[in-house]
Amino acid sequence: MSEFREVDTSAVVRVAAFRAALRSFLRTTERTARASGLTPQRYLLLLMIKGAPDGSEQTTVTELSARLQLGQSTVTELVKRAEQAGLIERERSDVDGRVAHVRLAAEGERRLAQAFTALADERRALQRIFVELDGG
Amino acid sequence: MSEFREVDTSAVVRVAAFRAALRSFLRTTERTARASGLTPQRYLLLLMIKGAPDGSEQTTVTELSARLQLGQSTVTELVKRAEQAGLIERERSDVDGRVAHVRLAAEGERRLAQAFTALADERRALQRIFVELDGG
Repeated sequence: MSEFREVDTSAVVRVAAFRAALRSFLRTTERTARASGLTPQRYLLLLMIKGAPDGSEQTTVTELSARLQLGQSTVTELVKRAEQAGLIERERSDVDGRVAHVRLAAEGERRLAQAFTALADERRALQRIFVELDGG
Repeated sequence: MSEFREVDTSAVVRVAAFRAALRSFLRTTERTARASGLTPQRYLLLLMIKGAPDGSEQTTVTELSARLQLGQSTVTELVKRAEQAGLIERERSDVDGRVAHVRLAAEGERRLAQAFTALADERRALQRIFVELDGG
């Protein structure tokens, strides 16, 4: 007579294991980013620039805003500070002067590569758990 | 001559896509939890109790602390407030009186089931992207 269908416990057990692994993964990501001289947010910023979907290794504030799920003004500020820190470079678009393309500077490349490489095992471990989650 | 090996762009593109999907997933989780009358943290708390690894649907503060990666005092406070809100129940262990077992109350079951069920499609979508990540 209950108004909800109870969920299958074994499905909840699998999802809980995944969420626990995810929390652990995000913690490790933060620690690893900091070890490479990056805040967690800056690590993601560099990752999203280098990892632009079209493989061009450059992007715009508008695209970053969508992928990071942050407001344009927040991303503009993040980009400005990362530029001042010598991690990224901005360049006006030839096609549309109002749009600036953002790419990594050499120091940004170096720190991203260091953190990214150090996280390879963590990503594999998380992926294994995720594959076992099996749509639960 | 560089002191780091540059990372493969296509691997970064895949990982960036995963991290973007992950941010979107966590955002949706938060929204869905709130729609079921749960803060994101409380959703995770109920999930970890119901999803105890041994399938018993009950756990302890110590275990919760490890899985949520939060301090014991933080979890104790979370548990206390969730109990006051009528979402969970505590019971002294028969074996060791110092240990309390925590399980869901009927209202906790109801809200968890609602949010958990509503998130099924999101989990599947994230999993698809994750499988494609392929250890990159």
